[in-house]
Amino acid sequence: MVNIAVLGYGTVGSGVVEVINTNHDNINKRAGKEINVKYVLDIRDFEDDPVQKILVHDFDVILKDPEVDIIVEVMGGVDPAYTFTKQALEAGKSVCTSNKELVAKHGAELLALAKKNKLNYLFEASVGGGIPIIRPLNSSLTADDITEITGILNGTTNYILTEMESKGAAFEDVLKDAQEKGYAERNPEADVEGYDACRKIAILTSLVCGEQVDYEDIHTEGITKLTETDFKYAKALNASIKLLGTSKKIDDTFYSMVAPVMIGKNHPLIGVHGVFNGIFVHGNVLDDVMFYGRGAGKLPTASAVVSDVVDAVKHMNTNIMTIWEEKKNRLGKFEDFKNKFFVRMRDKGLDDDQMLDIKNAFGNVLYVKAPDVQDELAFITEPIREGDFVENIKGLSDVLSVVRVDF
Amino acid sequence: MVNIAVLGYGTVGSGVVEVINTNHDNINKRAGKEINVKYVLDIRDFEDDPVQKILVHDFDVILKDPEVDIIVEVMGGVDPAYTFTKQALEAGKSVCTSNKELVAKHGAELLALAKKNKLNYLFEASVGGGIPIIRPLNSSLTADDITEITGILNGTTNYILTEMESKGAAFEDVLKDAQEKGYAERNPEADVEGYDACRKIAILTSLVCGEQVDYEDIHTEGITKLTETDFKYAKALNASIKLLGTSKKIDDTFYSMVAPVMIGKNHPLIGVHGVFNGIFVHGNVLDDVMFYGRGAGKLPTASAVVSDVVDAVKHMNTNIMTIWEEKKNRLGKFEDFKNKFFVRMRDKGLDDDQMLDIKNAFGNVLYVKAPDVQDELAFITEPIREGDFVENIKGLSDVLSVVRVDF
Repeated sequence: MVNIAVLGYGTVGSGVVEVINTNHDNINKRAGKEINVKYVLDIRDFEDDPVQKILVHDFDVILKDPEVDIIVEVMGGVDPAYTFTKQALEAGKSVCTSNKELVAKHGAELLALAKKNKLNYLFEASVGGGIPIIRPLNSSLTADDITEITGILNGTTNYILTEMESKGAAFEDVLKDAQEKGYAERNPEADVEGYDACRKIAILTSLVCGEQVDYEDIHTEGITKLTETDFKYAKALNASIKLLGTSKKIDDTFYSMVAPVMIGKNHPLIGVHGVFNGIFVHGNVLDDVMFYGRGAGKLPTASAVVSDVVDAVKHMNTNIMTIWEEKKNRLGKFEDFKNKFFVRMRDKGLDDDQMLDIKNAFGNVLYVKAPDVQDELAFITEPIREGDFVENIKGLSDVLSVVRVDF
Repeated sequence: MVNIAVLGYGTVGSGVVEVINTNHDNINKRAGKEINVKYVLDIRDFEDDPVQKILVHDFDVILKDPEVDIIVEVMGGVDPAYTFTKQALEAGKSVCTSNKELVAKHGAELLALAKKNKLNYLFEASVGGGIPIIRPLNSSLTADDITEITGILNGTTNYILTEMESKGAAFEDVLKDAQEKGYAERNPEADVEGYDACRKIAILTSLVCGEQVDYEDIHTEGITKLTETDFKYAKALNASIKLLGTSKKIDDTFYSMVAPVMIGKNHPLIGVHGVFNGIFVHGNVLDDVMFYGRGAGKLPTASAVVSDVVDAVKHMNTNIMTIWEEKKNRLGKFEDFKNKFFVRMRDKGLDDDQMLDIKNAFGNVLYVKAPDVQDELAFITEPIREGDFVENIKGLSDVLSVVRVDF
């Protein structure tokens, strides 16, 4: 028997207990041992829940119990999760987590500590919820030079964008509706400003390059500026607008960003709708692969956490090699990242002059039109350095919106 | 340093050598050791290829060399691959393979032999080419009760169906074109009759249920009967027709088949076009996940084989637990599998009589129409036992085509 302790009895923590209870036969068979939840740590009490019998309020009880082999940290946030995780790894207990903030910030350090002590620090649920992506990156895509990883990494924003697209609705209206349905938080900033996706692409990029990528270094834009009109153009172009976290390797340098991007009908992520997530990977010999599933939600996320517990049981006293060193990876300067841009401008009825300005700013561009949109000029540039785009767009007045394009 | 030997210098074998040469730095870093191709076995000579220097014609040279730790078996076919694999595992060498025929037929036995000798028998490339699916099934989707696995598992047929759909072309014409382009074999039977997909769904189902599923027990239909008109209806229904290998668990019994199925726009596999493959999995807590990528091709398949070599290096002297027992899984009887059916009939201009016959045969059905199709009646049934469908369709004359429906 292997005893585990669950830190935090919130959505994911209660999901972990539920998954272990529901699927115990399967899980024990896959782990090769019986998994027993010995403790749940929470500051709250849950009088009407059977969990109350194994509930503790003091982490030291867990830390000092030599019978506890594996700790599930699903508290979220950096503190005190960071302290607890370090103490656990120092006390000889492996840790499985869904905590993307902590993994993004201290993943490399915690992995090194786990390795030193022949333990494991596993975080499948930190990116893509139930989608297997961390383990495949670490143990399946090992024969390739991975040159791109791009994901729809946040279900809330993907739900909002899908609704805006299908209903022709405004961002604010859809956000309100999503909040009422519980798909968006009352304070939606971490989602709609792209901060959540940013931590996740930082984790993925760290695993791809094997070095620490700081999320603070990643250029991040949210979806709050997108309008119904942007989606009218996307539709006319047989395209869609998705919030992507992306890292591309160019001449051995990774360029990363989080931003809304217009993708075409042949992009592997085009079919990822609603609260689903998808992660696209391009390898130099593997070509394209894509992983799709529920990026959030109690049970899918808990399923990923429990799969880590099973893996930790299968690898007791053996560190699963994970290449993510503390050495900082110097991302390429964002100004040097080349992208194509979709630009909408107010049509001043001075076509020739305006088009000359556009030509001066961006050279040859592709003009695009959308049904039911008047008094606008819209075009798509050739790939251009981000820094040059910022400079050149200054030469144009009456710009209404800008969205990057990947097709 | 770890020495490996590659059995068979055909498409995949030469791909394995190429991938190891191209990405050696990355691969050695991920494996933690330098991987060296010491031998390549083939009955042919390759005078103009550097491989000639390490080429051997006698498997015994490899078998008796204690320096060889891992054998890559990419010969295909059951014999002599089966004998070589058993000899290798008995001689203390792990085996990595892309050989779906051998894995489907003797996977359980070879896994048991590997386990007994603290070795590994790995076969990521046997299903889905470059798509990571075997390892995720074995080590990521371990917290779930998997109730469905469905895949587009054959790139040749998916290419043919995609072309038929997009060009409105006939099967024979597209097949001929695919043969000219090298996407289909001169003898295309294994692909177009569904035999290849059948072996792959047998492997996947064995891994899901943990027992031996014999491919001979799986009802298998190919794509040769599909016509342009079937695709006209699919288009009118905003659907697509794909050759699926599928296993569904109902009341603890698995029902499996390979057959063309009409799937709707919300099916996760709807976006899998051309030579790409996709594998959809439904778990009771994970909900839906899908894996997408190149299901064939020299380098993607070789990438999967080499990822197995890396895993074998990381697990020297340790068996990676894989649950696939030799005990035979009794699949549910195909007659008891319930499916919906799309049926086309010649319209005899006797609407009332014909519709009464249809009602007598299938109860309430959904009548469907397609533009540019005359003199036909077409309908979709409710879910019905396969056995009952076969009986009831006998009551109708002038049936033109039948395709299963999953939406």
